[in-house]
Amino acid sequence: MLFVVGVGLKREHLTDEAKEVISRANKVYGSSKALEIAEEWIKGEKVRMTEFDEKTYRDIEKEAEEKDVAVLSTGDPMVAGLGRFFKRARVIPGISSVQVALGRINADLCEVSVLNAHSREPEFSEVKNLLVLAKKGVRLNFPGRKMIVLENLESRDEKIYEVHDFFETESDYTIVFVEVKK
Amino acid sequence: MLFVVGVGLKREHLTDEAKEVISRANKVYGSSKALEIAEEWIKGEKVRMTEFDEKTYRDIEKEAEEKDVAVLSTGDPMVAGLGRFFKRARVIPGISSVQVALGRINADLCEVSVLNAHSREPEFSEVKNLLVLAKKGVRLNFPGRKMIVLENLESRDEKIYEVHDFFETESDYTIVFVEVKK
Repeated sequence: MLFVVGVGLKREHLTDEAKEVISRANKVYGSSKALEIAEEWIKGEKVRMTEFDEKTYRDIEKEAEEKDVAVLSTGDPMVAGLGRFFKRARVIPGISSVQVALGRINADLCEVSVLNAHSREPEFSEVKNLLVLAKKGVRLNFPGRKMIVLENLESRDEKIYEVHDFFETESDYTIVFVEVKK
Repeated sequence: MLFVVGVGLKREHLTDEAKEVISRANKVYGSSKALEIAEEWIKGEKVRMTEFDEKTYRDIEKEAEEKDVAVLSTGDPMVAGLGRFFKRARVIPGISSVQVALGRINADLCEVSVLNAHSREPEFSEVKNLLVLAKKGVRLNFPGRKMIVLENLESRDEKIYEVHDFFETESDYTIVFVEVKK
């Protein structure tokens, strides 16, 4: 099985969930920095990643069909991280630089639009998909759009399903992904 | 001193940094859920919060002038959390539902716009400030705008400073907050 594990920006950011997954893995991939942060918890084979391309990712996926493989990502795997490159992985979240930055300047994530200018010039006008944090009874009216509803994440009642066009939220802990950008 | 501490969505999300701050605090405030997640680490006085208003927040700030007070926030304090209500607090990040959701649907934070519909109907066209994740040499040209540059967060060389109008990033680990919305 393949896990993509966020290790945060420093050792004190590691969660117990991340530590457990890392220490159970037969093989652990990561950049120098990520391996250093997680070092204490790595028990399997350690591989320093130097290539970050399609072939590397697909080879790792193949390897993970036969054993437990953890790919470490500094920060969070889904914040300009490695998560999006692996299609069949379980993602273990970690503390990202975005969260640290927002804490330092006292701004909420909902007030900002996060842009990745690591690999290209930032595009400031681009249309984005929406991620709506909602309680019960919020009406989402998006004719022609696909929505993914995520309810009660990490609880025993976690439910993920797809709807179209219109949806009224049914749980106080709902996140709805609205596909605006095709 | 006042700490606003993210406790994630479950016990396994707690970071070592959060555990340490919680166990050092003389007094710990939180919702029922937040207190339950952190329970094992609370050594000081435990206070279940029921009011979430200005007066409560200012009273807590005053109390924190004389002792170490931790306010727990489920998820992350800066993701539709309690962080933005406290002006002079040290924010300790936690795993947010946004990160868990993005992991489940394999989408990166940079692809989405996060909206808080907890307390009001979501506004889908609102102008947002920008948070640009950049490496060295990215040019940001925003005449008349204030920018806050955050370099090398959580490392020994962490630096935070303000610039105006134009900026070319100088570190491979830079986040720039651009004030677009006034």
